[in-house]
Amino acid sequence: MKINFLALSAFGVLISISVQAQVIQQSYKDQVETLVQDPAVKKAFDHILSIDEQTVQDMITLTEIPSPSHHEEEKGKVFAQMLRDAGADSVWTDEVGNVIALRKGTKSERTFLVEGHLDTVFPFGTDVTVKQRGDTLFAPGITDANRSLAIVVALLKTMIHENIRTKDDIWFAGTVGEEGLGDLKGMKHLFREGAYPLAAHIAIDGGGLEDIVNGGIGSLRYKVTFKGSGGHSYGAFGIGNPHNALAQAVVSFVPKADAFTKDGPKTTYSISVLGGGTSVNSIPYESWMLVDMRSETQEKLQGINQLFLESIQEGLEKENAIIRRGEALTVDIEKVGDRPSGLADPDSPLIQRTMAIAKHLSGNDPRLSSSSTNSNIAFSMGVPAVTIGRGGLGGGAHSLDEWWINKDGHLAIQQVLLLILMQGGWM
Amino acid sequence: MKINFLALSAFGVLISISVQAQVIQQSYKDQVETLVQDPAVKKAFDHILSIDEQTVQDMITLTEIPSPSHHEEEKGKVFAQMLRDAGADSVWTDEVGNVIALRKGTKSERTFLVEGHLDTVFPFGTDVTVKQRGDTLFAPGITDANRSLAIVVALLKTMIHENIRTKDDIWFAGTVGEEGLGDLKGMKHLFREGAYPLAAHIAIDGGGLEDIVNGGIGSLRYKVTFKGSGGHSYGAFGIGNPHNALAQAVVSFVPKADAFTKDGPKTTYSISVLGGGTSVNSIPYESWMLVDMRSETQEKLQGINQLFLESIQEGLEKENAIIRRGEALTVDIEKVGDRPSGLADPDSPLIQRTMAIAKHLSGNDPRLSSSSTNSNIAFSMGVPAVTIGRGGLGGGAHSLDEWWINKDGHLAIQQVLLLILMQGGWM
Repeated sequence: MKINFLALSAFGVLISISVQAQVIQQSYKDQVETLVQDPAVKKAFDHILSIDEQTVQDMITLTEIPSPSHHEEEKGKVFAQMLRDAGADSVWTDEVGNVIALRKGTKSERTFLVEGHLDTVFPFGTDVTVKQRGDTLFAPGITDANRSLAIVVALLKTMIHENIRTKDDIWFAGTVGEEGLGDLKGMKHLFREGAYPLAAHIAIDGGGLEDIVNGGIGSLRYKVTFKGSGGHSYGAFGIGNPHNALAQAVVSFVPKADAFTKDGPKTTYSISVLGGGTSVNSIPYESWMLVDMRSETQEKLQGINQLFLESIQEGLEKENAIIRRGEALTVDIEKVGDRPSGLADPDSPLIQRTMAIAKHLSGNDPRLSSSSTNSNIAFSMGVPAVTIGRGGLGGGAHSLDEWWINKDGHLAIQQVLLLILMQGGWM
Repeated sequence: MKINFLALSAFGVLISISVQAQVIQQSYKDQVETLVQDPAVKKAFDHILSIDEQTVQDMITLTEIPSPSHHEEEKGKVFAQMLRDAGADSVWTDEVGNVIALRKGTKSERTFLVEGHLDTVFPFGTDVTVKQRGDTLFAPGITDANRSLAIVVALLKTMIHENIRTKDDIWFAGTVGEEGLGDLKGMKHLFREGAYPLAAHIAIDGGGLEDIVNGGIGSLRYKVTFKGSGGHSYGAFGIGNPHNALAQAVVSFVPKADAFTKDGPKTTYSISVLGGGTSVNSIPYESWMLVDMRSETQEKLQGINQLFLESIQEGLEKENAIIRRGEALTVDIEKVGDRPSGLADPDSPLIQRTMAIAKHLSGNDPRLSSSSTNSNIAFSMGVPAVTIGRGGLGGGAHSLDEWWINKDGHLAIQQVLLLILMQGGWM
């Protein structure tokens, strides 16, 4: 997902507030102008338009297959068949479930990745039937990211139909575990140590043409559980209370975190969910919290993480210091999310290319921002990466009322095609 | 309920730890010895034994009618009919649902109350069918307090059959709202300002014959909810976090409460249940906790209550002092329980009588303790009161595995009868 923060984008989802100033170098603008005049490109653009109805149908087909994170198999199979039917050189599913189609390059010296994610935030049992009212398609997950998957298929079809090959190999993929507790599973696998080397990464997971994600907000998420014996609130009084330890930990953490986040790269923390206890007349046997910390930089993320982990121990020690009987409390710290942060230089070729194309196709000034998407991994490794939009009009991402209208939806596909051609060395 | 704390009683439930030393004055012992030699009493004891099977059947009938606190109507109707069938002078149901049978006295100068409670801790939908395995009866609520209700019926039957009248009027009752969030509703109504004056209160809601509750542990219970706007953990960072305010409140409270409860009458506090928040990547819009405070004395209870309420405000102010944008957090404080404390003097006539009878019937030294029962109200008002046992062997109160064996169960009924005769002025 492009988790998108405050202002409403054309997609009705909240977009990041850390929008950066940007300058598009003339050389990239010139390359785009040249490229779009090329008769082969014009023909490819026409083909994208000619298969537009089928691309929308593919989106609908894929949307109606449930695929919560960690359960993308069924959708992966259908998506793989679409890639085979498009005529990919080869299609395979890797160890974690990423579905990948190879489009061989003319030189094959490098490989880059173009992908949408297979998973949605919706659990099994959610009605994912697509409903049409007027020109609007409604269904949970229809844009995020089934539209992205349909774009991947349309791109592969177009390159094959128009017999376009870049110098580099391209992996057209549907990836697993992008959402929530998927924790970028698919992408961590593709960029793991010792993996087949990928030279660049284009993620299709955003809103409008001009909304370009060139940075990854890193995040660390924990479930922390303080534990004790529990007992009757009166009869067992004096034993350690896990709720007290949790409160002590939070109160140790907050002032330090508040000071730490007052300046420098944007860094945040949230005690987001907590719970525990059985009844009003019982000292609980456990108290837990889900905590989210994010930063634009890895250094600040590690800094606040350190403060957090210290505070957990302090909370535990403070409560254990005042218990009058029974065993000391203990604590379990479970990391439930770990997304690295990173930033691609606005002057780097991939970002410059993306901005030049977006400006040309949309007529608007592109907006760079940081967010949390599959590209976080590549950003953090310094691999050229960008997350771009899926086009059309849409809204309600992550809600049951998610919707999409095919308003010039083909432009987003054309945008990715241009980026592939420029990045892959076609001209 | 006799909520009963640490040591296992004959009933397998936990009994209070504040057991007091006691001396039974010889005059009360002598009265008991005289009483049990009386032929009318011997006949009455025989009658209790002769209807023992029906008393057990009444307990089963009543157990199989669900009656969670605040929903005692159906059981109340059946119980009222049992009292009518026993031949009560009159039977009525009061404004809150207490079912009361009058046994007129010979002088009627005073009235005292003998009761068991109609409600159980089990919600609708709980299987309350009584199952027998060997000599053991299993069902949620079978002892607590359906056995008590059956004893009330057996006592009334016996007094009518044996034509026994005390000088005082007696109200034989089944009362509502004793458990949990019932918060002693029935008893608060019966002892409200301006109510028909009751001169004494005998609650049947304990374990063995020798377990005598002469004190009420007072309690105050709150649900405290801190509220804010909520928002995205990254995008809305800087708004107030209700979890932080809750943690600050707990941390303000605990050291003060720890110091306050270190000496003097036993006083306790427990942050028992807490919750709030929607997802790991959201600042919550609310954070709530259920808190229980208890004390042997009203003064200490009010003292810790004051510390608690101050701490809630401090927690709110501390978090509001560091928020960077958005509205200030607010807090709702809802009192969900208020049971006064009190203590009956071990040398007072009702407690002396109860101890003398218990010693005679059980052969064991009686144990006085404080607990949380219907008698709390009378204790707090200085009205003579006691909570005594329902006899037999039992265990698993408040659990689905609650059980009871009719091991000399008639002794508990005979115990209450002797107490009624002594308290009501029969001899």
